[in-house]
Amino acid sequence: MLSFHITYKDKQSQARIGRLQINSQTFETPIFMPVGTKASVKSLDSQEITEVNGGIILANTFHLWNSPGLETLKRLKGVQNFMDYAGPILTDSGGYQVFSLAKNRVIKEEGVYFSNPENGDRLFLSPEISMEIQRTIKSDIVMCLDECPDANSDLEYLIPSINRTIRWARRCKDSLNSPQALFGINQGGLDKDLRLYCLQELMKMDFDGYAIGGLSVGETKAQMYEITKFLSDYLPPEKPRYLMGVGGIDDLIENVYNGIDMFDCVMPTRNARHGMFYTMEGKFNIKHSRYENDDSPLDTTFHHRYSHYKKSYLRHLFKNKELLVFRILTYHNLFFMKSFMEMIRTSIKENKFLEFRENIKRNTNFYH
Amino acid sequence: MLSFHITYKDKQSQARIGRLQINSQTFETPIFMPVGTKASVKSLDSQEITEVNGGIILANTFHLWNSPGLETLKRLKGVQNFMDYAGPILTDSGGYQVFSLAKNRVIKEEGVYFSNPENGDRLFLSPEISMEIQRTIKSDIVMCLDECPDANSDLEYLIPSINRTIRWARRCKDSLNSPQALFGINQGGLDKDLRLYCLQELMKMDFDGYAIGGLSVGETKAQMYEITKFLSDYLPPEKPRYLMGVGGIDDLIENVYNGIDMFDCVMPTRNARHGMFYTMEGKFNIKHSRYENDDSPLDTTFHHRYSHYKKSYLRHLFKNKELLVFRILTYHNLFFMKSFMEMIRTSIKENKFLEFRENIKRNTNFYH
Repeated sequence: MLSFHITYKDKQSQARIGRLQINSQTFETPIFMPVGTKASVKSLDSQEITEVNGGIILANTFHLWNSPGLETLKRLKGVQNFMDYAGPILTDSGGYQVFSLAKNRVIKEEGVYFSNPENGDRLFLSPEISMEIQRTIKSDIVMCLDECPDANSDLEYLIPSINRTIRWARRCKDSLNSPQALFGINQGGLDKDLRLYCLQELMKMDFDGYAIGGLSVGETKAQMYEITKFLSDYLPPEKPRYLMGVGGIDDLIENVYNGIDMFDCVMPTRNARHGMFYTMEGKFNIKHSRYENDDSPLDTTFHHRYSHYKKSYLRHLFKNKELLVFRILTYHNLFFMKSFMEMIRTSIKENKFLEFRENIKRNTNFYH
Repeated sequence: MLSFHITYKDKQSQARIGRLQINSQTFETPIFMPVGTKASVKSLDSQEITEVNGGIILANTFHLWNSPGLETLKRLKGVQNFMDYAGPILTDSGGYQVFSLAKNRVIKEEGVYFSNPENGDRLFLSPEISMEIQRTIKSDIVMCLDECPDANSDLEYLIPSINRTIRWARRCKDSLNSPQALFGINQGGLDKDLRLYCLQELMKMDFDGYAIGGLSVGETKAQMYEITKFLSDYLPPEKPRYLMGVGGIDDLIENVYNGIDMFDCVMPTRNARHGMFYTMEGKFNIKHSRYENDDSPLDTTFHHRYSHYKKSYLRHLFKNKELLVFRILTYHNLFFMKSFMEMIRTSIKENKFLEFRENIKRNTNFYH
């Protein structure tokens, strides 16, 4: 069961502080959710995952359906028990991967037929099957199966697609049949009328929360912010708002400004595996030769179990593809995300969010 | 400074318990040393390295010379400070890699000329240079530069090689010029006369300990055990004895039987990266389909920070090449090695070493 209360509203923006309770665990929003694609936040163990997330992580239904598969998830009693992780988990619907990874895709009213990109097997995903998989995963928050249209889709494509997404949302709600929380997903490309129409239809079904999908898929940042700003006037204020797949530091600030409560993105973890690390000065790359003999610690702003490692050593590990460095930078970036969201929340509570935003714009490279 | 005392001698074998003190840290022998090739015990952080070693780890001079290189090691004040690891470290001389990896090798009296396998650079390693590098690394125990001849070398090759190794040992001792402990390395292939001759010449120089090199390089296990058994009658009983590059469970037992005090090997860590894990039943591979739905923990004999993870989950991680599994299995295997050596030591102290050895032979697959 999910409950959500707004505890503070910013006076100069749509930003807000919420308390989200899910199955006896409570956390504050706005929050960033680390991505644990295949029942693993890449390179981290359960204890570390607990330390770096603000209250909830995301897992991908499509990948878990593939591996370990439903049989194992059933026998192992859900993904939390499987991976020995006690905190809340949100699962996506599997739809995004079907639309971004799958080959030979055919969308019909009943669902979507496609070939598994890993082995070519013909598969079928429907609203009912997505609900069944997420029920088996036993995630705390479940997402409706939607179609995520291409960023450049025209109205001729978008209108029937959005109408199908709305009908699928209804079927998801009707078939979930479990105490898990269920979020509807707003689509509509960059067309405000369609976005509003979709949202209003979803709101009639009274979901536990509302996600905004189909952004961060190729549009400009200005276009993304315009849609979230537009929707913020219509989203039900008492329900959590989740902007899917968004996680650039500038995007977090600008969308918190527009009233978003929840985010997820692979960027902090994927960037870590490419040597990028975040600090309060901005993003940097540990591969840089300037770190060759740099005995200063990785970070002095946020202290954590790996922040004392020397940049020189981390560069050496990265150059030699030593596995330890992927763990350290992944942990560090997620710890940064968690701490950064705390700073955002504090600045909102202290009526200093605009000041905080201005400071990040001026004194870091996050907006470059 | 190194001090070593035998605290217990087995009555039915050459096995012995020692206390080795090095720079104010003390540990018991026989001991297995995990290998931290490039200033990293692959995938583990410093805290974990501390937890899984019995008192000392090994680092490779050749690899550290290459990367991060002497300049960085000098500026970062040695490998322990570089990697933020406080425990004792033994370094090999770099010789083994020159003889196993290097191309276009030319051995002369002054040292060995070769091409760096990583970039083709012409390099030169001599006893004096090896001592300089190990002084810069600031390891606690330093190894002499020796030539490690091929297992099939004939006497015509071995005799001048062993004589050069003896002269190089002298040059190492004369040039080290540091409070680091220095071990001589016994060579001689499978020829007992040569082994004894080499040992006697080294003993005249009075090293802090004696290593046995040139084994585990292609000879049979019986041949290896015969050489260690032979040497045990002549090695000075009051000095630590280190069998280089040996780490199979059966080899540990049989060579402890022959009076060896120290071992190192990449096997437990390399095997982990191939899915192999050790238990008191023997070696198994996590990839096996029998673990698909196995919700039993990795290990119930030795409890450690990762022993509770389910085999089903570990198999899933391994199948999906998720980085976490390499860490867990590496940690597990080294924790096993440490615990297994503790069991060996306990069995010796309780006069039950032969019983313990018999039990491992009968009830595990380690001797297969």
